[in-house]
Amino acid sequence: MIVEISFVPIGVGTSLSHYIAKVINYIEKSGLKYQLTPMGTIIEAEWNEISSFIDYSHNLIFQMGVERIITNIKIDYRLDKKSSMQDKIDSVKKKRVEVDV
Amino acid sequence: MIVEISFVPIGVGTSLSHYIAKVINYIEKSGLKYQLTPMGTIIEAEWNEISSFIDYSHNLIFQMGVERIITNIKIDYRLDKKSSMQDKIDSVKKKRVEVDV
Amino acid sequence: MIVEISFVPIGVGTSLSHYIAKVINYIEKSGLKYQLTPMGTIIEAEWNEISSFIDYSHNLIFQMGVERIITNIKIDYRLDKKSSMQDKIDSVKKKRVEVDV
Amino acid sequence: MIVEISFVPIGVGTSLSHYIAKVINYIEKSGLKYQLTPMGTIIEAEWNEISSFIDYSHNLIFQMGVERIITNIKIDYRLDKKSSMQDKIDSVKKKRVEVDV
Repeated sequence: MIVEISFVPIGVGTSLSHYIAKVINYIEKSGLKYQLTPMGTIIEAEWNEISSFIDYSHNLIFQMGVERIITNIKIDYRLDKKSSMQDKIDSVKKKRVEVDV
Repeated sequence: MIVEISFVPIGVGTSLSHYIAKVINYIEKSGLKYQLTPMGTIIEAEWNEISSFIDYSHNLIFQMGVERIITNIKIDYRLDKKSSMQDKIDSVKKKRVEVDV
Repeated sequence: MIVEISFVPIGVGTSLSHYIAKVINYIEKSGLKYQLTPMGTIIEAEWNEISSFIDYSHNLIFQMGVERIITNIKIDYRLDKKSSMQDKIDSVKKKRVEVDV
Repeated sequence: MIVEISFVPIGVGTSLSHYIAKVINYIEKSGLKYQLTPMGTIIEAEWNEISSFIDYSHNLIFQMGVERIITNIKIDYRLDKKSSMQDKIDSVKKKRVEVDV
Protein backbone atom coordinates (compact mmCIF):
# COMPACT_ATOMS: atom_id res chain seq x y z
CA MET A 1 0.00 0.00 0.00
CA ILE A 2 0.97 3.64 -0.37
CA VAL A 3 0.56 5.81 2.70
CA GLU A 4 1.02 9.52 3.33
CA ILE A 5 1.75 10.52 6.91
CA SER A 6 2.14 13.91 8.54
CA PHE A 7 3.00 14.36 12.20
CA VAL A 8 2.12 17.71 13.77
CA PRO A 9 3.74 18.33 17.17
CA ILE A 10 1.46 20.62 19.20
CA GLY A 11 2.51 23.37 21.60
CA VAL A 12 6.24 23.47 20.82
CA GLY A 13 6.53 26.55 18.65
CA THR A 14 5.72 27.14 14.99
CA SER A 15 8.88 25.54 13.59
CA LEU A 16 8.40 21.81 13.28
CA SER A 17 11.11 20.77 10.83
CA HIS A 18 13.56 19.34 13.36
CA TYR A 19 10.91 16.89 14.60
CA ILE A 20 10.24 15.82 11.02
CA ALA A 21 14.00 15.56 10.37
CA LYS A 22 14.26 13.09 13.24
CA VAL A 23 11.50 10.95 11.75
CA ILE A 24 13.08 11.11 8.29
CA ASN A 25 16.46 10.03 9.68
CA TYR A 26 14.70 7.07 11.26
CA ILE A 27 12.86 6.08 8.10
CA GLU A 28 16.06 6.40 6.07
CA LYS A 29 17.77 3.90 8.41
CA SER A 30 14.75 1.59 8.31
CA GLY A 31 15.24 1.01 4.59
CA LEU A 32 11.57 1.71 3.80
CA LYS A 33 10.85 3.23 0.37
CA TYR A 34 9.72 6.82 0.99
CA GLN A 35 9.35 10.28 -0.47
CA LEU A 36 9.39 13.57 1.47
CA THR A 37 6.92 16.18 0.21
CA PRO A 38 6.24 19.73 1.46
CA MET A 39 3.15 18.40 3.27
CA GLY A 40 4.11 14.94 4.53
CA THR A 41 6.00 11.74 3.99
CA ILE A 42 4.83 9.11 1.53
CA ILE A 43 5.78 5.50 2.20
CA GLU A 44 5.31 2.35 0.16
CA ALA A 45 5.14 -0.68 2.47
CA GLU A 46 2.91 -3.28 4.11
CA TRP A 47 0.55 -2.25 6.92
CA ASN A 48 2.54 -3.94 9.69
CA GLU A 49 5.62 -1.94 8.64
CA ILE A 50 3.62 1.29 8.38
CA SER A 51 1.97 0.68 11.72
CA SER A 52 5.31 0.10 13.46
CA PHE A 53 6.75 3.18 11.80
CA ILE A 54 3.88 5.34 13.10
CA ASP A 55 4.24 3.93 16.61
CA TYR A 56 8.00 4.41 16.68
CA SER A 57 7.77 7.94 15.24
CA HIS A 58 5.29 9.02 17.91
CA ASN A 59 7.73 7.81 20.54
CA LEU A 60 10.66 9.58 18.86
CA ILE A 61 8.76 12.87 18.85
CA PHE A 62 7.55 12.48 22.45
CA GLN A 63 11.18 11.84 23.50
CA MET A 64 12.08 15.25 22.04
CA GLY A 65 9.84 16.88 24.68
CA VAL A 66 6.57 17.09 22.78
CA GLU A 67 3.40 16.33 24.79
CA ARG A 68 0.78 16.20 22.04
CA ILE A 69 0.91 15.08 18.43
CA ILE A 70 -1.82 15.26 15.80
CA THR A 71 -1.11 12.81 13.01
CA ASN A 72 -2.82 12.53 9.64
CA ILE A 73 -2.58 9.36 7.60
CA LYS A 74 -3.97 8.66 4.14
CA ILE A 75 -3.83 5.09 2.86
CA ASP A 76 -4.25 4.03 -0.76
CA TYR A 77 -4.70 0.26 -0.67
CA ARG A 78 -5.53 -1.59 -3.85
CA LEU A 79 -5.72 -5.20 -4.86
CA ASP A 80 -6.60 -4.73 -8.55
CA LYS A 81 -3.07 -3.85 -9.60
CA LYS A 82 0.34 -3.18 -8.18
CA SER A 83 0.94 0.58 -8.30
CA SER A 84 4.07 2.20 -6.92
CA MET A 85 4.48 5.86 -5.94
CA GLN A 86 6.16 6.51 -9.29
CA ASP A 87 3.46 4.56 -11.20
CA LYS A 88 0.79 6.87 -9.79
CA ILE A 89 2.64 9.98 -10.96
CA ASP A 90 3.39 8.44 -14.38
CA SER A 91 -0.23 7.39 -14.83
CA VAL A 92 -1.50 10.95 -14.32
CA LYS A 93 1.20 12.37 -16.61
CA LYS A 94 0.36 9.90 -19.39
CA LYS A 95 -3.35 10.68 -19.17
CA ARG A 96 -2.72 14.43 -19.41
CA VAL A 97 -2.28 14.21 -23.17
CA GLU A 98 -5.55 12.28 -23.52
CA VAL A 99 -7.78 14.75 -21.70
CA ASP A 100 -8.17 18.44 -22.43
CA VAL A 101 -9.31 21.30 -20.27
CA MET B 1 -5.40 8.13 21.93
CA ILE B 2 -8.44 9.33 20.01
CA VAL B 3 -8.57 8.41 16.35
CA GLU B 4 -10.97 9.25 13.55
CA ILE B 5 -11.08 6.83 10.65
CA SER B 6 -12.95 6.90 7.36
CA PHE B 7 -12.81 4.10 4.84
CA VAL B 8 -13.73 4.98 1.25
CA PRO B 9 -14.34 1.96 -1.01
CA ILE B 10 -13.45 2.94 -4.59
CA GLY B 11 -15.20 1.82 -7.77
CA VAL B 12 -18.25 0.15 -6.23
CA GLY B 13 -20.96 2.73 -6.77
CA THR B 14 -21.77 5.92 -4.92
CA SER B 15 -23.56 4.30 -1.98
CA LEU B 16 -21.02 3.24 0.62
CA SER B 17 -23.10 2.81 3.77
CA HIS B 18 -23.32 -1.00 3.73
CA TYR B 19 -19.52 -1.25 3.77
CA ILE B 20 -19.40 1.11 6.72
CA ALA B 21 -22.22 -0.81 8.42
CA LYS B 22 -20.09 -3.97 8.22
CA VAL B 23 -17.18 -2.18 9.88
CA ILE B 24 -19.45 -0.73 12.58
CA ASN B 25 -20.90 -4.17 13.33
CA TYR B 26 -17.35 -5.41 13.76
CA ILE B 27 -16.29 -2.56 16.04
CA GLU B 28 -19.45 -3.03 18.12
CA LYS B 29 -18.51 -6.67 18.71
CA SER B 30 -14.90 -5.74 19.47
CA GLY B 31 -15.97 -3.76 22.53
CA LEU B 32 -13.92 -0.71 21.54
CA LYS B 33 -15.28 2.67 22.62
CA TYR B 34 -16.45 4.43 19.46
CA GLN B 35 -18.71 7.10 18.00
CA LEU B 36 -20.16 7.14 14.49
CA THR B 37 -20.28 10.59 12.86
CA PRO B 38 -21.56 11.64 9.41
CA MET B 39 -17.95 11.73 8.19
CA GLY B 40 -16.20 8.86 9.96
CA THR B 41 -15.81 6.72 13.03
CA ILE B 42 -14.06 8.00 16.13
CA ILE B 43 -12.38 5.46 18.40
CA GLU B 44 -10.71 5.80 21.77
CA ALA B 45 -8.09 3.07 22.20
CA GLU B 46 -4.39 2.21 22.21
CA TRP B 47 -2.44 2.18 18.93
CA ASN B 48 -2.11 -1.62 18.76
CA GLU B 49 -5.90 -1.92 19.00
CA ILE B 50 -6.46 0.83 16.42
CA SER B 51 -3.88 -0.69 14.09
CA SER B 52 -5.52 -4.14 14.26
CA PHE B 53 -8.94 -2.59 13.72
CA ILE B 54 -7.74 -0.83 10.55
CA ASP B 55 -6.13 -4.00 9.23
CA TYR B 56 -9.19 -6.13 9.95
CA SER B 57 -11.57 -3.54 8.48
CA HIS B 58 -9.62 -3.38 5.22
CA ASN B 59 -9.94 -7.16 4.95
CA LEU B 60 -13.66 -7.05 5.75
CA ILE B 61 -14.25 -4.50 2.98
CA PHE B 62 -12.08 -6.37 0.46
CA GLN B 63 -14.09 -9.54 1.23
CA MET B 64 -17.23 -7.67 0.17
CA GLY B 65 -15.80 -7.41 -3.36
CA VAL B 66 -14.05 -4.04 -3.17
CA GLU B 67 -10.66 -3.81 -4.93
CA ARG B 68 -9.44 -0.42 -3.75
CA ILE B 69 -9.90 1.47 -0.49
CA ILE B 70 -8.75 4.97 0.39
CA THR B 71 -8.60 5.40 4.14
CA ASN B 72 -8.13 8.59 6.12
CA ILE B 73 -6.98 8.49 9.72
CA LYS B 74 -6.51 11.38 12.13
CA ILE B 75 -4.82 10.66 15.45
CA ASP B 76 -4.92 12.90 18.51
CA TYR B 77 -2.26 11.54 20.86
CA ARG B 78 -1.46 13.42 24.03
CA LEU B 79 0.61 12.70 27.11
CA ASP B 80 -0.09 15.93 29.03
CA LYS B 81 -3.55 14.86 30.17
CA LYS B 82 -6.09 12.12 29.74
CA SER B 83 -8.84 13.40 27.47
CA SER B 84 -11.74 11.26 26.31
CA MET B 85 -13.99 11.89 23.30
CA GLN B 86 -16.58 13.41 25.64
CA ASP B 87 -13.95 15.51 27.47
CA LYS B 88 -12.97 17.14 24.18
CA ILE B 89 -16.57 18.13 23.40
CA ASP B 90 -17.16 19.33 26.97
CA SER B 91 -13.98 21.39 26.95
CA VAL B 92 -15.05 23.31 23.83
CA LYS B 93 -18.57 23.81 25.20
CA LYS B 94 -17.25 25.14 28.51
CA LYS B 95 -14.91 27.59 26.77
CA ARG B 96 -17.72 28.94 24.60
CA VAL B 97 -19.01 31.10 27.43
CA GLU B 98 -15.52 32.52 28.02
CA VAL B 99 -14.85 33.68 24.49
CA ASP B 100 -16.99 35.98 22.36
CA VAL B 101 -17.27 36.41 18.65
CA MET C 1 -22.21 19.32 0.47
CA ILE C 2 -21.12 17.97 3.83
CA VAL C 3 -17.75 19.12 5.07
CA GLU C 4 -15.66 18.26 8.12
CA ILE C 5 -13.16 20.86 9.23
CA SER C 6 -10.55 20.84 11.95
CA PHE C 7 -8.35 23.81 12.75
CA VAL C 8 -5.11 23.10 14.61
CA PRO C 9 -3.41 26.20 16.04
CA ILE C 10 0.36 25.55 16.15
CA GLY C 11 2.80 26.71 18.82
CA VAL C 12 0.32 28.00 21.39
CA GLY C 13 0.29 25.22 23.96
CA THR C 14 -1.40 21.84 23.97
CA SER C 15 -4.86 23.09 24.95
CA LEU C 16 -6.72 24.21 21.86
CA SER C 17 -10.35 24.21 22.98
CA HIS C 18 -10.74 27.97 23.46
CA TYR C 19 -9.72 28.57 19.83
CA ILE C 20 -12.30 26.02 18.70
CA ALA C 21 -14.89 27.57 21.03
CA LYS C 22 -14.39 30.91 19.28
CA VAL C 23 -15.00 29.29 15.90
CA ILE C 24 -18.07 27.45 17.19
CA ASN C 25 -19.52 30.67 18.59
CA TYR C 26 -19.05 32.21 15.16
CA ILE C 27 -20.66 29.33 13.31
CA GLU C 28 -23.58 29.35 15.75
CA LYS C 29 -24.22 33.00 14.94
CA SER C 30 -23.85 32.36 11.21
CA GLY C 31 -26.87 30.08 11.23
CA LEU C 32 -25.06 27.32 9.33
CA LYS C 33 -26.16 23.75 10.08
CA TYR C 34 -23.30 22.13 11.97
CA GLN C 35 -22.30 19.35 14.36
CA LEU C 36 -19.35 19.43 16.78
CA THR C 37 -17.50 16.10 17.10
CA PRO C 38 -14.49 15.18 19.26
CA MET C 39 -12.30 15.51 16.14
CA GLY C 40 -13.76 18.41 14.18
CA THR C 41 -16.77 20.35 13.07
CA ILE C 42 -19.12 19.03 10.41
CA ILE C 43 -21.05 21.55 8.33
CA GLU C 44 -23.77 21.15 5.74
CA ALA C 45 -23.70 24.07 3.30
CA GLU C 46 -22.73 25.27 -0.17
CA TRP C 47 -19.06 25.70 -1.09
CA ASN C 48 -19.16 29.52 -1.10
CA GLU C 49 -20.50 29.46 2.49
CA ILE C 50 -17.93 26.85 3.55
CA SER C 51 -15.11 28.77 1.89
CA SER C 52 -16.07 32.02 3.63
CA PHE C 53 -16.37 30.20 6.94
CA ILE C 54 -12.84 28.79 6.58
CA ASP C 55 -11.41 32.16 5.66
CA TYR C 56 -13.15 33.95 8.52
CA SER C 57 -12.19 31.26 11.04
CA HIS C 58 -8.52 31.51 10.11
CA ASN C 59 -8.69 35.25 10.76
CA LEU C 60 -10.50 34.74 14.07
CA ILE C 61 -7.78 32.35 15.26
CA PHE C 62 -4.92 34.57 14.05
CA GLN C 63 -6.53 37.48 15.94
CA MET C 64 -6.23 35.41 19.14
CA GLY C 65 -2.43 35.53 18.77
CA VAL C 66 -1.81 32.34 16.81
CA GLU C 67 0.85 32.54 14.07
CA ARG C 68 0.37 29.20 12.32
CA ILE C 69 -2.70 27.06 11.69
CA ILE C 70 -2.88 23.62 10.09
CA THR C 71 -6.39 22.97 8.82
CA ASN C 72 -7.85 19.68 7.59
CA ILE C 73 -10.95 19.65 5.46
CA LYS C 74 -12.87 16.65 4.12
CA ILE C 75 -15.63 17.30 1.59
CA ASP C 76 -18.36 14.85 0.64
CA TYR C 77 -19.98 16.28 -2.46
CA ARG C 78 -22.63 14.27 -4.29
CA LEU C 79 -25.05 14.96 -7.08
CA ASP C 80 -26.77 11.56 -7.19
CA LYS C 81 -28.93 12.21 -4.14
CA LYS C 82 -29.50 14.74 -1.39
CA SER C 83 -27.97 13.35 1.79
CA SER C 84 -27.90 15.30 5.04
CA MET C 85 -25.59 14.66 8.01
CA GLN C 86 -28.40 12.75 9.71
CA ASP C 87 -29.21 10.78 6.52
CA LYS C 88 -25.65 9.48 6.42
CA ILE C 89 -25.82 8.22 10.01
CA ASP C 90 -29.30 6.74 9.46
CA SER C 91 -28.18 4.98 6.30
CA VAL C 92 -25.33 3.19 8.08
CA LYS C 93 -27.58 2.27 11.02
CA LYS C 94 -30.25 0.84 8.71
CA LYS C 95 -27.69 -1.25 6.81
CA ARG C 96 -26.26 -2.69 10.02
CA VAL C 97 -29.14 -5.19 10.29
CA GLU C 98 -28.59 -6.31 6.68
CA VAL C 99 -24.90 -7.15 6.97
CA ASP C 100 -23.30 -9.48 9.46
CA VAL C 101 -19.76 -9.69 10.79
CA MET D 1 -0.51 29.40 2.19
CA ILE D 2 0.47 25.90 1.12
CA VAL D 3 -2.39 23.49 0.47
CA GLU D 4 -2.52 19.81 -0.42
CA ILE D 5 -5.63 18.64 -2.21
CA SER D 6 -6.77 15.20 -3.28
CA PHE D 7 -9.97 14.57 -5.20
CA VAL D 8 -11.41 11.06 -5.03
CA PRO D 9 -14.15 10.36 -7.61
CA ILE D 10 -16.51 7.72 -6.18
CA GLY D 11 -18.25 4.93 -8.06
CA VAL D 12 -16.45 5.24 -11.40
CA GLY D 13 -14.00 2.35 -11.27
CA THR D 14 -10.69 1.94 -9.49
CA SER D 15 -8.60 3.91 -11.98
CA LEU D 16 -8.78 7.60 -11.17
CA SER D 17 -5.78 9.05 -13.00
CA HIS D 18 -7.65 10.53 -15.96
CA TYR D 19 -9.80 12.62 -13.63
CA ILE D 20 -6.68 13.88 -11.89
CA ALA D 21 -5.02 14.52 -15.25
CA LYS D 22 -7.92 16.81 -16.17
CA VAL D 23 -7.46 18.78 -12.95
CA ILE D 24 -3.69 19.00 -13.49
CA ASN D 25 -4.17 20.30 -17.02
CA TYR D 26 -6.43 22.97 -15.60
CA ILE D 27 -4.02 23.99 -12.87
CA GLU D 28 -1.17 24.10 -15.38
CA LYS D 29 -3.15 26.58 -17.49
CA SER D 30 -4.13 28.62 -14.42
CA GLY D 31 -0.49 29.49 -13.76
CA LEU D 32 -0.70 28.51 -10.07
CA LYS D 33 2.49 27.16 -8.49
CA TYR D 34 1.90 23.46 -7.86
CA GLN D 35 3.53 20.08 -7.32
CA LEU D 36 2.00 16.69 -8.16
CA THR D 37 2.75 13.95 -5.60
CA PRO D 38 1.68 10.28 -5.57
CA MET D 39 -1.04 11.20 -3.05
CA GLY D 40 -2.28 14.62 -4.09
CA THR D 41 -1.54 18.02 -5.52
CA ILE D 42 0.24 20.69 -3.50
CA ILE D 43 -0.46 24.31 -4.34
CA GLU D 44 1.05 27.55 -3.09
CA ALA D 45 -1.48 30.37 -3.39
CA GLU D 46 -3.92 32.63 -1.55
CA TRP D 47 -7.17 31.22 -0.17
CA ASN D 48 -9.42 32.88 -2.77
CA GLU D 49 -7.36 31.25 -5.54
CA ILE D 50 -7.38 27.88 -3.78
CA SER D 51 -11.09 28.10 -3.12
CA SER D 52 -11.86 28.88 -6.77
CA PHE D 53 -9.58 26.04 -7.88
CA ILE D 54 -11.44 23.56 -5.67
CA ASP D 55 -14.81 24.74 -6.91
CA TYR D 56 -13.77 24.62 -10.56
CA SER D 57 -12.14 21.19 -10.17
CA HIS D 58 -15.28 19.70 -8.65
CA ASN D 59 -17.23 20.95 -11.66
CA LEU D 60 -14.62 19.58 -14.10
CA ILE D 61 -14.85 16.13 -12.50
CA PHE D 62 -18.66 16.15 -12.35
CA GLN D 63 -18.69 17.06 -16.08
CA MET D 64 -16.74 13.86 -16.76
CA GLY D 65 -19.73 11.84 -15.50
CA VAL D 66 -18.82 11.46 -11.82
CA GLU D 67 -21.70 11.78 -9.33
CA ARG D 68 -19.83 11.85 -6.03
CA ILE D 69 -16.44 13.23 -5.04
CA ILE D 70 -14.68 12.99 -1.69
CA THR D 71 -12.05 15.67 -1.40
CA ASN D 72 -9.34 16.03 1.23
CA ILE D 73 -7.62 19.34 1.81
CA LYS D 74 -4.79 20.15 4.19
CA ILE D 75 -3.85 23.80 4.67
CA ASP D 76 -0.61 25.06 6.18
CA TYR D 77 -1.16 28.75 6.86
CA ARG D 78 1.47 30.74 8.69
CA LEU D 79 2.04 34.39 9.43
CA ASP D 80 5.35 34.07 11.30
CA LYS D 81 7.44 33.59 8.16
CA LYS D 82 7.12 33.16 4.44
CA SER D 83 7.75 29.50 3.64
CA SER D 84 7.46 28.07 0.14
CA MET D 85 6.98 24.39 -0.77
CA GLN D 86 10.72 24.15 -1.47
CA ASP D 87 11.60 25.98 1.79
CA LYS D 88 9.71 23.33 3.77
CA ILE D 89 11.64 20.48 2.13
CA ASP D 90 14.97 22.33 2.50
CA SER D 91 14.28 23.06 6.17
CA VAL D 92 13.77 19.38 7.00
CA LYS D 93 16.84 18.37 4.97
CA LYS D 94 19.04 20.95 6.74
CA LYS D 95 17.85 19.82 10.17
CA ARG D 96 18.61 16.17 9.37
CA VAL D 97 22.31 16.68 10.04
CA GLU D 98 21.55 18.32 13.41
CA VAL D 99 19.41 15.53 14.84
CA ASP D 100 20.33 11.89 15.19
CA VAL D 101 18.23 8.76 15.46
